[in-house]
Amino acid sequence: MNTNFTLSCPIPISDYPYVLLAHGGGGKLTNQLIAKMFVPLFNNPELEAQHDGAVFRVGGGDRVGLSSSEMGDRKGSPLLAFSTDSYVIHPLFFPGGDIGSMAVHGTVNDLAMCGARPLYLSAGYIIEEGLPMDTLWRIVQSMAQAAKNAHVSIVTGDTKVVDRGKGDGVFINTAGVGIIEHDQRIAPQSVRPGDVLIVNGDIGRHGIAIMAVREGLEFETIIESDSAPVADLVLQLLDARVEIHCMRDLTRGGMASALNEIAEGSQTGIAIEERRVPVRDDVNAACELLGFDPLYVACEGRFVAFVAPQDADRALEIMRRHPLGADAAIIGSVKADGYPGVVMMKSRIGANRIVDMISGEQLPRIC
Amino acid sequence: MNTNFTLSCPIPISDYPYVLLAHGGGGKLTNQLIAKMFVPLFNNPELEAQHDGAVFRVGGGDRVGLSSSEMGDRKGSPLLAFSTDSYVIHPLFFPGGDIGSMAVHGTVNDLAMCGARPLYLSAGYIIEEGLPMDTLWRIVQSMAQAAKNAHVSIVTGDTKVVDRGKGDGVFINTAGVGIIEHDQRIAPQSVRPGDVLIVNGDIGRHGIAIMAVREGLEFETIIESDSAPVADLVLQLLDARVEIHCMRDLTRGGMASALNEIAEGSQTGIAIEERRVPVRDDVNAACELLGFDPLYVACEGRFVAFVAPQDADRALEIMRRHPLGADAAIIGSVKADGYPGVVMMKSRIGANRIVDMISGEQLPRIC
Repeated sequence: MNTNFTLSCPIPISDYPYVLLAHGGGGKLTNQLIAKMFVPLFNNPELEAQHDGAVFRVGGGDRVGLSSSEMGDRKGSPLLAFSTDSYVIHPLFFPGGDIGSMAVHGTVNDLAMCGARPLYLSAGYIIEEGLPMDTLWRIVQSMAQAAKNAHVSIVTGDTKVVDRGKGDGVFINTAGVGIIEHDQRIAPQSVRPGDVLIVNGDIGRHGIAIMAVREGLEFETIIESDSAPVADLVLQLLDARVEIHCMRDLTRGGMASALNEIAEGSQTGIAIEERRVPVRDDVNAACELLGFDPLYVACEGRFVAFVAPQDADRALEIMRRHPLGADAAIIGSVKADGYPGVVMMKSRIGANRIVDMISGEQLPRIC
Repeated sequence: MNTNFTLSCPIPISDYPYVLLAHGGGGKLTNQLIAKMFVPLFNNPELEAQHDGAVFRVGGGDRVGLSSSEMGDRKGSPLLAFSTDSYVIHPLFFPGGDIGSMAVHGTVNDLAMCGARPLYLSAGYIIEEGLPMDTLWRIVQSMAQAAKNAHVSIVTGDTKVVDRGKGDGVFINTAGVGIIEHDQRIAPQSVRPGDVLIVNGDIGRHGIAIMAVREGLEFETIIESDSAPVADLVLQLLDARVEIHCMRDLTRGGMASALNEIAEGSQTGIAIEERRVPVRDDVNAACELLGFDPLYVACEGRFVAFVAPQDADRALEIMRRHPLGADAAIIGSVKADGYPGVVMMKSRIGANRIVDMISGEQLPRIC
């Protein structure tokens, strides 16, 4: 059953003979890997949609991918979302969360970004031999609590142990299945000029919380991660029939990468205003100290929604009434006269600049 | 959002202060971890079923777990299977396969063991910085080929990179979703006295193939792994309306662990005959050399089916007509007068002995 390896590697080996940390950073190199290696080889419409998860119908005949015009039909078979993420964050515990709660929130949020109600999660542990049993126990308890809070069940799992020195404490993979109970098509391809961009709160806290622990930095106040499950908030928007064209959570690569992915996927021009993007003062100060731009710092409980203009104010109100959207803000819009695939930002002093996708790796192992 | 950790660890810290390789070995310690830590905390009927995957309905009302008496109802909503496994095998390439093909076969087989037709897979990569790009490319190609052969689509994924020395080349997690298109209840709880045990071929080749590469052993012939997707074979049995009560693939811990899990889950007594268990001569010779018992050596394309007695001969015929079941054999049965939860084996010389679950770790990182 050995495969014949006849195709040459689509990533030029002369440029990248080895996998770099940046290939997992959520920026340009990650996207190159996905676009050149995974998408062409795995070759299916669900993956090509390059959403936070795959969307498909199951039952009632042959499968129907998101790209099919039949998606609205076959009412008998439910429309599902399916997503996965591995969590390799270091350190395992941090202010505001730990790898266990994050492994639940991250996948719950990916399903929510597809407009799905998260239902079931799997949990796959890759443990390094020698992990204190009590550490594992704390992490598993945290996962269980996070799952309960997010109204999902962890229904299947797997445990592997690798020899000492071949892992790092514990890595956790979760995959999730959710159900889409509305007929909106939430995907980059649905974005259109006029759409209003709303973020559900201040950005950058997760990344700064991790960096502070890792580097032993002390600020006046402890900055806690924003890690949280946003599905409930998203479902409130959908229940209120807010017309949402796309959503994306602001994880690896931060807001800059999320917006670039959507600009690229929708071939629209996005414009945001720096003064409207909420960043807490302590996070701003920490960013200046560390030389980071908050636009590139990962969050784990923040997302941007692309909302039809007539529903923007209503969406903002709904968000602000929710504990996870109290500081929600309109940060920009999709421009009819923008450059397709480009994100522009008007700075505080009124200058326009291009917000590019991150090219290197700002913060390895942030999630 | 920090959880309060109030419960004390259910694994006695005095016995196991640290996670051992054996906790991932598929034997007693793995089962203790699952039974004492994961099942009580995650607390849901799907996980409690302790099957190779979770089985649930989605859509058409509230969720219905496998344990519910309503499982046969709600015809409108499809019955799904959901499973996950992480693959940490060392070395990455071996005779008969590689980590990529295995990551597809393993999860496809877990879904098949639930009686499901595998449809969609996720793929989560945890790559160690410095992995040659071409190695990743070969693995991804192999996954794509294996998915095509097994008629599944890899529809969503994730790539993480960890710093050099904090991983080992690449670990791959796959999760899978399949659909159950029949009304048999395939689960340990369905096993009953009289059931006939059929294995789809000779056992132990995968483990021996890995050991041979790892230890640099040379036999007269190269022993290739049995790694293969068995879903097609299982679906043929189901299409022919063979009454199957339970199935399990013979992975970590080998046939001995699989049978013990089912004996325990069904509280029945299982009896097998050594002379009926197919083991190739070269595998037997290698086992003797290495001090292994073939009953405990992992396979990746072998399973045992518990079949109603009136269908056993027909099931065997169907298996033998399939390329992955040419050497299928009836190896034993479930005894009305057996000890509940115990697996007995009649040896070649006619003595009866208990086949226990593996207690330590025979072959780490075999899958």
